[in-house]
Amino acid sequence: MTHMTDIKIAQAKKLLHIKNIAKKLNVDEDDLEMYGKFKAKLPLFLIDEEKVKKNNLVLVTALTPTPAGEGKTTVSIGLTEALNKIGKQATVVLREPSLGPVFGMKGGAAGGGYSQVVPMEDINLHFTGDFNAVEKANNFLAALIDNNIQSKTNNLNIDPRTILWKRVIDMNDRALREITIGLGGTSNGVPRQDGFNITPASEVMAILCMASDLDNLKERLGNIFIGFTFDNTPVFARDLKAENAMAILLKDAIKPNLVQTLEENPAIIHGGPFANIAQGTNTIIATKMGLTLSNYVVTEAGFGADLGAEKFLNIKSQFANLNPKCVVLVSTIRALRHHGGAKTEEYNTPDLVKVTVGFNNLEKHIENIRKFNIEPVVAINSFVSDSDEEVAFVIEKCASLGVEAVLSEGWAKGGNGTTDLAKAVVNVVENKATQYKPLYNWKSPVTDKIETIAKEIYGAKNVEYSKLAQLNLRRINRLGFNDFAICMAKTQKSFSDDETLIGRPEGFTINVREIEIAAGAEFLIPILGKMMRMPGLPEHPASENMTIDTNGVISGLS
Amino acid sequence: MTHMTDIKIAQAKKLLHIKNIAKKLNVDEDDLEMYGKFKAKLPLFLIDEEKVKKNNLVLVTALTPTPAGEGKTTVSIGLTEALNKIGKQATVVLREPSLGPVFGMKGGAAGGGYSQVVPMEDINLHFTGDFNAVEKANNFLAALIDNNIQSKTNNLNIDPRTILWKRVIDMNDRALREITIGLGGTSNGVPRQDGFNITPASEVMAILCMASDLDNLKERLGNIFIGFTFDNTPVFARDLKAENAMAILLKDAIKPNLVQTLEENPAIIHGGPFANIAQGTNTIIATKMGLTLSNYVVTEAGFGADLGAEKFLNIKSQFANLNPKCVVLVSTIRALRHHGGAKTEEYNTPDLVKVTVGFNNLEKHIENIRKFNIEPVVAINSFVSDSDEEVAFVIEKCASLGVEAVLSEGWAKGGNGTTDLAKAVVNVVENKATQYKPLYNWKSPVTDKIETIAKEIYGAKNVEYSKLAQLNLRRINRLGFNDFAICMAKTQKSFSDDETLIGRPEGFTINVREIEIAAGAEFLIPILGKMMRMPGLPEHPASENMTIDTNGVISGLS
Repeated sequence: MTHMTDIKIAQAKKLLHIKNIAKKLNVDEDDLEMYGKFKAKLPLFLIDEEKVKKNNLVLVTALTPTPAGEGKTTVSIGLTEALNKIGKQATVVLREPSLGPVFGMKGGAAGGGYSQVVPMEDINLHFTGDFNAVEKANNFLAALIDNNIQSKTNNLNIDPRTILWKRVIDMNDRALREITIGLGGTSNGVPRQDGFNITPASEVMAILCMASDLDNLKERLGNIFIGFTFDNTPVFARDLKAENAMAILLKDAIKPNLVQTLEENPAIIHGGPFANIAQGTNTIIATKMGLTLSNYVVTEAGFGADLGAEKFLNIKSQFANLNPKCVVLVSTIRALRHHGGAKTEEYNTPDLVKVTVGFNNLEKHIENIRKFNIEPVVAINSFVSDSDEEVAFVIEKCASLGVEAVLSEGWAKGGNGTTDLAKAVVNVVENKATQYKPLYNWKSPVTDKIETIAKEIYGAKNVEYSKLAQLNLRRINRLGFNDFAICMAKTQKSFSDDETLIGRPEGFTINVREIEIAAGAEFLIPILGKMMRMPGLPEHPASENMTIDTNGVISGLS
Repeated sequence: MTHMTDIKIAQAKKLLHIKNIAKKLNVDEDDLEMYGKFKAKLPLFLIDEEKVKKNNLVLVTALTPTPAGEGKTTVSIGLTEALNKIGKQATVVLREPSLGPVFGMKGGAAGGGYSQVVPMEDINLHFTGDFNAVEKANNFLAALIDNNIQSKTNNLNIDPRTILWKRVIDMNDRALREITIGLGGTSNGVPRQDGFNITPASEVMAILCMASDLDNLKERLGNIFIGFTFDNTPVFARDLKAENAMAILLKDAIKPNLVQTLEENPAIIHGGPFANIAQGTNTIIATKMGLTLSNYVVTEAGFGADLGAEKFLNIKSQFANLNPKCVVLVSTIRALRHHGGAKTEEYNTPDLVKVTVGFNNLEKHIENIRKFNIEPVVAINSFVSDSDEEVAFVIEKCASLGVEAVLSEGWAKGGNGTTDLAKAVVNVVENKATQYKPLYNWKSPVTDKIETIAKEIYGAKNVEYSKLAQLNLRRINRLGFNDFAICMAKTQKSFSDDETLIGRPEGFTINVREIEIAAGAEFLIPILGKMMRMPGLPEHPASENMTIDTNGVISGLS
């Protein structure tokens, strides 16, 4: 066990030049666009659909998490290290961290302990500028909209009250949630209500992650649905001639980023939508790049398997023809205690009874993964406070369900702590892999799709639609958007839409308050409960403890 | 003469790998942080103050410009090409373009025709992310301020009505000029009036351009003056523990960017404050980097010499101990016609009478440059519509003032069109260079400094202070900020603060409406007239004509 901070561990590592990481993937140095010595963008022409089909995709997800998170990224990285250690050629493919949480409470998202991707400071800060490009493309469309309603000679007759498109900023800034803009007289635009979301909630981010190439990106950007004219005609980004300028702003952001793990294995990091309000997984392009360049790709999807994994499987895998061969369900003893009723201050106290009770949460996730015709492996992400009997209980209980559960010690030991997990995963991939199937077809009726997720994945008894949601359903029908995927916006804290219902709730109703349209991403977004798309900073932001010295060495970033 | 667009010319050029440009400056490839193959950041440790003193600094400025601009960047690049051609080792050092104007009306700022810096698309878009870093650092401070006034346990008792710090975005977005934030109830912050400026107007941008190194940057960031507590105590960014996080966000932005000209000469591009509302010149670090690495540095300062050059000489050169040895005054026949009374539709019609009348504008700028004990050279930036007699008039008239005026054909011919200009500049540097002297000392009383600029540079009869400005003067005195430099905010269209007064106005009054404090940059900013810090998009934004094809090739960007 170590007491070193993540950043100290990361800084102690002497990194390989990124061209040497590329060499492991048989990528020519000349094809790299380097960003310093340790980051590079990969050109899209490398992607080979034949190899994408042939190679092995492993998805890392989790049980319903506690607010601290259960370590999916750490497990994903550790698993990748171990796969390489046991002779498989593996790449980890991850999302890019959002800057807001880095300076707020949660910290970065580059793994932890001895399972990290590096250079962690750069990855957690501006990285290669992709988030900025998304932000600029999003906000340029917003500026075009307000410019259009201000314009006398070139306007589309947009009704300002119907505008759905919001500005974004990659910052935890609650004061921007609800604002009024265009104040101060006729030269300052038309006054209207507005607000900022955090950048990972931008539809542009969702589009970037769904796009297959630059042309498809541009087409999707043009398809963004903005609002209505005074004549009730729908207005799209293409009506504002926005899609080319937006794609120009994203011309580099569309290329996946190559970095390395602490054990010098390849990591591709690209795109960063949150999983409670968006699809919660890296770009399709990055996944395909990984599958082109390596025999095993380990990737993660955000929050619990009811959110990230459900969307990974029903939205991303279905759309992009991916065939995930194994799902790793990350579990912690801490989270099982939580689902068994432990309070926050009891999280680190061994309690076999609570773990036994809380196991029903993990059990439901195991059942859910099998509904996609995929065999799960449970990774028990190890903590010092875990008791031997709690761990033994989880392993035995999983075994009784026919699932292998293994202790994962990537945080403390890197790849050496995750070889058992790697072997369990390889066993599933090589001996038990099947053709995965999605739970619903995009072409099914909208309410059928929503009910399938609510009942099959969440375990709900029924679904109720608010008046507004019913109006939204009619609008979706009128606009011809029935065939879009369902991208639920739901609390990550419960299977239900009530964050207080821990464990495996039953008999509950899912309440659809409204349904948003992301026509560029091709998503319908049912909003279940009050979803926050702009976090705030805590009373003491993490930034207060960060320093940078004369030589540019950072401390306090985690 | 060519009819190719700027972007076509730039795209037709096969670029050298940036390591080969670095080699020309004796910079080791290993010291470069590459951003792709054609851009790189230079490490600060290369700067050598002895070489900075020894080498030759040439400032390019202009007469009072028309709205289209008179081509300072194009002349600066052309001059650099020609200096290299005639055997001098020269680097051009420029500002980074702001994205707002690129998609608005003005277009990019990477030169034009056959005098461009490349890759022009990247330089005009996100480049190496510096503007984004400035924006994030600026907006993180804003988020900390609003978080602090929202906080119950960790607040500084800031009076929200006194907050001076605004958010920024690098976008032409008039609807964000005046907004109200923090609406929607107690969990969304404290409602207050606010607004966004464009990123080049951020004090963080001004600070980045004044900072000598990372420690100095951090100190200046901490010194940013935010507003007052309810007890009327001034509040600074350091009170919010903001300076480390802000410096962390700027850790890469502080490093100058190396690119190349169309003729494969080195170009350093770094920082981008506007000259009408900020200091209008690239970073001090970039200028010193250029002077360390090459015998001649050609640099520019924004808008007319009453703005950019005045600030370059009184603020930047005085603070950083620079000694510019020659000033190139860019003039166009078009602008002289304008100052002689030509209307916009007459700009391209030869009119010797109007040029003769309008010459008084250029004459005043020539006189002004000499007040700094520097000898000017006039570059007549050539246009097809120039008549021989107009050009001959300007050359003769300048000669009568003892100033060499030469035709500059960099746009059409690159370095081959600017060798005469290069020879004229070398003649001044090698035979007529003197020790420049600033017009005022920072330690003089505030009103003396303002009056010196108003009378000596603008030609005003007197200066009047509004009630608010008089209050501001007392505040400045109370806070102990008297020794800061004066950074005027004035229209670029006239020597006076009335944009309709063309030519060489006399007998006018300068009206100081208010005086802002930029305590981190160490500027006092007298606002003369209504200064816009957030432009709007035109009825038909330039973006409407931009396209990007399947292969990522952009057209319509200018």
